[in-house]
Amino acid sequence: MLTERAIVGLQELTARDRVLTAREDLLTYAGDATPLLGARPAAVVVPRDAGEVAGIVRLANEEGFSVVPRGAGTGLSGGAVPSADAVVLLFPTWNRILEIDEPNRCAWVEPGVVTADLHQAVEELGLFYAPDPGSMKVCTIGGNVAENAGGLRGLKYGVTKDWIRGLEVVLPTGELVQLGGKALKDVAGYDLVSLMVGSEGTLGVFTRVLVRLIPKPPTTRTILATFATVEAAGAAVAAIAASKILPSTLEILDRTTLRAVESFAGVGLDDEVEAMLLIEVDGRAEAVDDDAHSITGTCRAERATTVRHAASPDHADELRTARRAAFTALARLRPTAILEDATVPPSAVPELLGRIRAIAERHDVTIGVFGHAGDGNLHPTCLIDGRDAAEVARAEAAFEDIFSATITLGGTITGEHGVGLAKKRFLPRQLGQPGVRFLRQIKAALDPNHVLNPGKIFDPAPRCEGPPLGHPRFVDAT
Amino acid sequence: MLTERAIVGLQELTARDRVLTAREDLLTYAGDATPLLGARPAAVVVPRDAGEVAGIVRLANEEGFSVVPRGAGTGLSGGAVPSADAVVLLFPTWNRILEIDEPNRCAWVEPGVVTADLHQAVEELGLFYAPDPGSMKVCTIGGNVAENAGGLRGLKYGVTKDWIRGLEVVLPTGELVQLGGKALKDVAGYDLVSLMVGSEGTLGVFTRVLVRLIPKPPTTRTILATFATVEAAGAAVAAIAASKILPSTLEILDRTTLRAVESFAGVGLDDEVEAMLLIEVDGRAEAVDDDAHSITGTCRAERATTVRHAASPDHADELRTARRAAFTALARLRPTAILEDATVPPSAVPELLGRIRAIAERHDVTIGVFGHAGDGNLHPTCLIDGRDAAEVARAEAAFEDIFSATITLGGTITGEHGVGLAKKRFLPRQLGQPGVRFLRQIKAALDPNHVLNPGKIFDPAPRCEGPPLGHPRFVDAT
Repeated sequence: MLTERAIVGLQELTARDRVLTAREDLLTYAGDATPLLGARPAAVVVPRDAGEVAGIVRLANEEGFSVVPRGAGTGLSGGAVPSADAVVLLFPTWNRILEIDEPNRCAWVEPGVVTADLHQAVEELGLFYAPDPGSMKVCTIGGNVAENAGGLRGLKYGVTKDWIRGLEVVLPTGELVQLGGKALKDVAGYDLVSLMVGSEGTLGVFTRVLVRLIPKPPTTRTILATFATVEAAGAAVAAIAASKILPSTLEILDRTTLRAVESFAGVGLDDEVEAMLLIEVDGRAEAVDDDAHSITGTCRAERATTVRHAASPDHADELRTARRAAFTALARLRPTAILEDATVPPSAVPELLGRIRAIAERHDVTIGVFGHAGDGNLHPTCLIDGRDAAEVARAEAAFEDIFSATITLGGTITGEHGVGLAKKRFLPRQLGQPGVRFLRQIKAALDPNHVLNPGKIFDPAPRCEGPPLGHPRFVDAT
Repeated sequence: MLTERAIVGLQELTARDRVLTAREDLLTYAGDATPLLGARPAAVVVPRDAGEVAGIVRLANEEGFSVVPRGAGTGLSGGAVPSADAVVLLFPTWNRILEIDEPNRCAWVEPGVVTADLHQAVEELGLFYAPDPGSMKVCTIGGNVAENAGGLRGLKYGVTKDWIRGLEVVLPTGELVQLGGKALKDVAGYDLVSLMVGSEGTLGVFTRVLVRLIPKPPTTRTILATFATVEAAGAAVAAIAASKILPSTLEILDRTTLRAVESFAGVGLDDEVEAMLLIEVDGRAEAVDDDAHSITGTCRAERATTVRHAASPDHADELRTARRAAFTALARLRPTAILEDATVPPSAVPELLGRIRAIAERHDVTIGVFGHAGDGNLHPTCLIDGRDAAEVARAEAAFEDIFSATITLGGTITGEHGVGLAKKRFLPRQLGQPGVRFLRQIKAALDPNHVLNPGKIFDPAPRCEGPPLGHPRFVDAT
């Protein structure tokens, strides 16, 4: 609970006008981009620097409130959804790129830097930061690190964790430490940087981030292939994944998604086909031409109905932007769109595509499928009306079946969105009780008072005293 | 302490002839490749399967002995050096490659597989496992994972942690769990795979390892460049690192090392120069030719005295093997060779090279320098007589100064060898007390009885009751 004394303490730590408690402020930060989840926090604080963040976390330990760091609120698993006793931390002005170190190919940035702004800044110097989440024009590096965000270029370049060399972090005790650094290799102690990346705000608050950079790939080729069945598209994905070529991007859009995207963006996609692949290869000009040629052959061998190359960089950009609009486009079709990120080994993509279709039919729900097929990371998106309890129940039953399928196929309940609140009940099925206990032990050791974003990923303890942390399934709109 | 009852318990868990307690067996496993460190364990056990490992770890919790998993004993920080109450676990027959999954580009292997054997097995299928520690013909995957081993190809391909997708692990509680898996992306909970990699046997015993594979690069070019000063070679390293080319290998050998290697291997190296760079680029033929040409130009611009390309793949292999023999060659010169792995951001390599030379002069010790200069990871190797206490003290003082230099230059006390016993007293200087406490908290939470390899990386606790764990600085040769 946030006491009056704690509020005064927060005001003294930062400034009176940086501690927001008005109802409209609290409602604004009650949820993130996850549908059907939300709760008004007790206060919203806008700290100025790492010292203030550290002070707030120490005060939280003393006064018994919890702290939820928040990026741009684009998360899809409820990681930034507060509990009622929580103080939400905002970082709107923490958007400076502090240093781009060209010789050592890295950059220190503040956590509030928008991901696409970082791309632009480093690309002007011929450098490259690969992670490109769908929301990259809005989302911030701090949130990307907290959720270990993926993106369209993950197949070749990996996810956020592969691009973070160091962090300045406020620990759950309120201590400020630097983890990692500019050395390319460092085995001095456990890999705390990797432990922090993807910790969903539960182990530390990031106040600076050191990202890795590489030389920008000089050329990109973009290929569109269409298929008469989703299974044929899935087979092409598996064939490309098993070839000796590593595309930078290998995305799938099914007919539901294609129609939504074309109606939204109007870029001339053929929405009469059952599935489309958007494939990109990058690198040197000669090599990417060879690769594009070879991928064209693979798609044709897997019965693609058409294979086209983007006519120009602008055209390629238009196609990429259309793909990025998939969720937005689908979300226009019904009042509520629940986006998931079921992920399997790449060879199991055709099987998962078939199962998702059967599951949608069985539960009588519309599921559009798109996503990073080359990674085995699909985004089945269920289109419902969140006010219709029966339809919500059918959607939840469908996702139950989808996650059972991903686990059975050797995959994971979440490839890039995190567990947050939305998927914590599925976690024991994937990790088993010893695995979840292991996570809990780490959390309890590092954050004994459960100050940082408690109740995310897993509940504090199965036998904890007192009532479980309440997270209403619907936004409190009163 | 290992009681008679515990020994009987071990025999019951596995088999009588798999529990070794004879003095000669214990002496064999008293140390690893780290000079001046060693202690006879209480017993050596050779488990047959993961179930037996789990049973041993549970028994250790019940009976109060510690467990030290051991790979091939090539470690250079004392990570496998037991304490006197310890049971050392050996995995000599755990050397099967269980599955190579070509479509999903990964392989499950047992921890006792020799690294070079894995290279060979996957390369026959056109696939590639990059980590190639200097000892790759002897060392094993389990040890590589425990120490997060590096190698010559780290500059382009990263270190062991970048190649591990999953682990089957016996936790400190004796539970057997699988972490990670064949999915390329997985954010279901904290990144426990990364926490385990580099944990030096203190958080789990690996019973199976899932490694990532990529298509084998089709071509490699090998370049040798010589320099009239070490500083010029360092400047060439920094210039290449800052260019838009990423060599797979960028190694330096100073004159002391060159002379030792040439005398040992006789491959025609010019040992009259002050420094040599061994540079490799790999990829497609056209691209590597371009890169080799460009690197040749960079070396000439940085005043290389000669730049030559390896005449054939066999010649390249000979040069690589000579480089791998650097430590062995240096170790022949004096009774004791202490190899370290000071690591700095790549741009600081010229500065570190100069400082190491000055430090060697100041402390009147011979230090040969070689290593992965492109990574900023140097192996200053101090050649002494370990029986000469005064010389040992001078060497230790020199390393003190070297580690102070690496930390000052934004680097680390260990790039790829681990902290083990040899460097734990330097760790607080790099991480600070809050950082070390964070590590300790993780260890204490996951291994409350300090059963797994205790006393490595850090001491259990600064205020722990009872005497500190004794690790004699010299092997007990009685």
